[in-house]
Amino acid sequence: MIKTDILIIGAGPTGLFAVFEAGLLKLKCHLIDALPQPGGQCSEIYPKKPIYDIPGFPEVLAGDLVDNLMAQIAPFEPGFTLGERADTIEKLDDGSFIVTTNKGTKHHAPVVAIAGGLGSFEPRKPLIDNLVNYEDKGVEYIIRDPELYRDKRVVIAGGGDSALDWSIFLSDVAAEVTLVHRRNEFRGALDSVEKVQELKKLGKINLLTPAEITELKGNGKLEELVAEREGEEIRLETDHFIPLFGLAPKLGPIANWGLEIEKNAIKVDNTLDYQTNVPGVYAIGDVNTYPGKLKLILCGFHEATLMCQSAYQRIYPDKKYVMKYTTVSGVDGFDGTRKEAPKAVVKTIE
Amino acid sequence: MIKTDILIIGAGPTGLFAVFEAGLLKLKCHLIDALPQPGGQCSEIYPKKPIYDIPGFPEVLAGDLVDNLMAQIAPFEPGFTLGERADTIEKLDDGSFIVTTNKGTKHHAPVVAIAGGLGSFEPRKPLIDNLVNYEDKGVEYIIRDPELYRDKRVVIAGGGDSALDWSIFLSDVAAEVTLVHRRNEFRGALDSVEKVQELKKLGKINLLTPAEITELKGNGKLEELVAEREGEEIRLETDHFIPLFGLAPKLGPIANWGLEIEKNAIKVDNTLDYQTNVPGVYAIGDVNTYPGKLKLILCGFHEATLMCQSAYQRIYPDKKYVMKYTTVSGVDGFDGTRKEAPKAVVKTIE
Ligand SMILES: Cc1cc2nc3c(=O)[nH]c(=O)nc-3n(C[C@H](O)[C@H](O)[C@H](O)COP(=O)(O)OP(=O)(O)OC[C@H]3O[C@@H](n4cnc5c(N)ncnc54)[C@H](O)[C@@H]3O)c2cc1C
Ligand SMILES: Cc1cc2nc3c(=O)[nH]c(=O)nc-3n(C[C@H](O)[C@H](O)[C@H](O)COP(=O)(O)OP(=O)(O)OC[C@H]3O[C@@H](n4cnc5c(N)ncnc54)[C@H](O)[C@@H]3O)c2cc1C
Repeated sequence: MIKTDILIIGAGPTGLFAVFEAGLLKLKCHLIDALPQPGGQCSEIYPKKPIYDIPGFPEVLAGDLVDNLMAQIAPFEPGFTLGERADTIEKLDDGSFIVTTNKGTKHHAPVVAIAGGLGSFEPRKPLIDNLVNYEDKGVEYIIRDPELYRDKRVVIAGGGDSALDWSIFLSDVAAEVTLVHRRNEFRGALDSVEKVQELKKLGKINLLTPAEITELKGNGKLEELVAEREGEEIRLETDHFIPLFGLAPKLGPIANWGLEIEKNAIKVDNTLDYQTNVPGVYAIGDVNTYPGKLKLILCGFHEATLMCQSAYQRIYPDKKYVMKYTTVSGVDGFDGTRKEAPKAVVKTIE
Repeated sequence: MIKTDILIIGAGPTGLFAVFEAGLLKLKCHLIDALPQPGGQCSEIYPKKPIYDIPGFPEVLAGDLVDNLMAQIAPFEPGFTLGERADTIEKLDDGSFIVTTNKGTKHHAPVVAIAGGLGSFEPRKPLIDNLVNYEDKGVEYIIRDPELYRDKRVVIAGGGDSALDWSIFLSDVAAEVTLVHRRNEFRGALDSVEKVQELKKLGKINLLTPAEITELKGNGKLEELVAEREGEEIRLETDHFIPLFGLAPKLGPIANWGLEIEKNAIKVDNTLDYQTNVPGVYAIGDVNTYPGKLKLILCGFHEATLMCQSAYQRIYPDKKYVMKYTTVSGVDGFDGTRKEAPKAVVKTIE
């Protein structure tokens, strides 16, 4: 059982920044995310694209923003349960919660903050009859650990940035990479398309277009794929099949947690602390809704900050918290580090 | 008469960022500030100190944050009325407003956003009888334009960073700089104290401590100061006397604008758009109050953003605004510049 002060569901920018604000209040956080990496939409959908409306950054790549947030919260040593989806919540008699993931990992905390964005990212799967039989037996929809593919034969399907970028990356790791796409045209960053073109010429990536995988074969684990190209049937011996057709967010199990839902988002009390109708459960960032709500990163930051103040009151009902400026008080990490402004000196001039 | 869409009172971080959010909605902004430079508390009180809780910046100097915000809003060409205090507001029959400063400058806008922080910064003045008689006749409390002091004799009073830093700066500009302080010890950044020590040794700054200015003399304009050092009376011929005893914010005239005030701050509707009890007048950032309010920079950013949405509805009641991500739509400056993410290509790989 993982124990923490604030259990955050969703490691997007909102959930990440909540760790910092909680840390200032000496509250520990643990984050659960269905994705294998932190950053939410910023990491998963547009890591290499610039954002222009983060205050103080005339321009910042979404991936860099996530890196900066990770550096900012590092002193508060957040825990992570990655690659798992929060599935159920249970309220104990003492008002605290147990949240269990699809893999059975249990988390216990007095406060739960849902920062689930548009929902847990679930892969779009190709429509192939026996696909599910091979899931985790050679079929993966998300690349969690590239080392899994070292010296293996890999078939990637898809025509966008993920398919291009992972084909490039794995061409250096796997024994063989085949990229299958139902069109001849790929859609992605210019340099990714050009790199794949180059690797194809060098024989480091096999290209099969316009083609689709129609059948999976293998005894207990994936051994062979059947592809169809313009009526012709092609057999591919392979160890892994990785369809990268994008991830679609689904509010998913959270929709059944007894929270008031409106327009696929969780209703919160924006007059005070972004708490849901279940005391002790907050919803911050893209996942919540209230009159005038804007699904913007900077709004999630504000909501996370106010949520932490309320969480503090809930966890320590008898303590009175007096807000201090970081500039004035510095930042004391749970890792023993301290950041502080250089002090003024009092000194005689002779 | 200066005309704009949103008239912003206060050019602190909140007011500055509002320009950006308004710009995305194609609304123009003009800012009034009592200080000679933008940045509010960040520029005036702690420009060289680090802030640790701006999301995405593990550490940023307050002055750099202001510079970044100025760069971010530059494409939206905000207007500035600096060094003037907004004194009166008048509502016209068409629901728009005229705001007039202490120097008589008039501004006309359909929406007024008060981002006045802790109030308009007013100098702390030393208690010397006839001081006011020489204001702007040799006595200045804020240095607006250092060129005013070129080749002049200057006496600065004070023992903190402002007095130290301006003595250093003006030692290169003025004919003569004398620094008067009632103690021998100065309180400031170590390198400032050391620099003054060095300039004193070089004879580029005269030091008079522990001493106080007790009298001002001159016919129509300042000509001489009388200082007292340990009972001894010292006469200083001078052109300028600059007491730098700090600036204290005062809500000031805004307190009489018919707005609901609570704890020296303006009550706003935090359930929607940070509007005050006067429709069309908003209050954002440190200057406002609502249940759970935190006087933090990141909160001002959020409030500014929601305010702009509401201002847009007020200015264009018949238009429906659909929010677009900057990453997706780019940013079109009023100066003709355009920022946008590199587009994906659709390209055949052969
Ligand atoms: C192409 C694009 C461009 C954008 N441009 C901008 C822009 O310019 N400016 C701007 O402010 N915003 C922009 N956005 C929106 C911005 O990315 C979101 O506002 C932001 O990511 C929301 O952050 P969040 O932390 O609330 O949620 P998310 O980033 O969505 O993160 C939520 C996380 O929660 C996880 N999760 C959800 N449910 C569960 C569960 N049950 N179990 C485990 N994990 C779960 C998800 O996997 C996800 O990782 C853009 C979005 C897109 C797609
Ligand atoms: C030493 C110190 C350390 C701090 N550290 C932090 C920190 O670590 N993190 C954080 O988030 N915050 C911190 N703060 C607080 C932060 O600086 C404020 O929250 C922020 O400056 C508020 O921005 P604002 O734009 O709302 O108001 P301000 O920065 O106060 O700007 C308001 C401006 O309005 C002007 N004004 C007011 N009335 C009038 C008028 N009638 N006419 C013309 N001009 C007017 C003023 O002159 C001023 O320039 C700190 C503050 C101090 C003093």
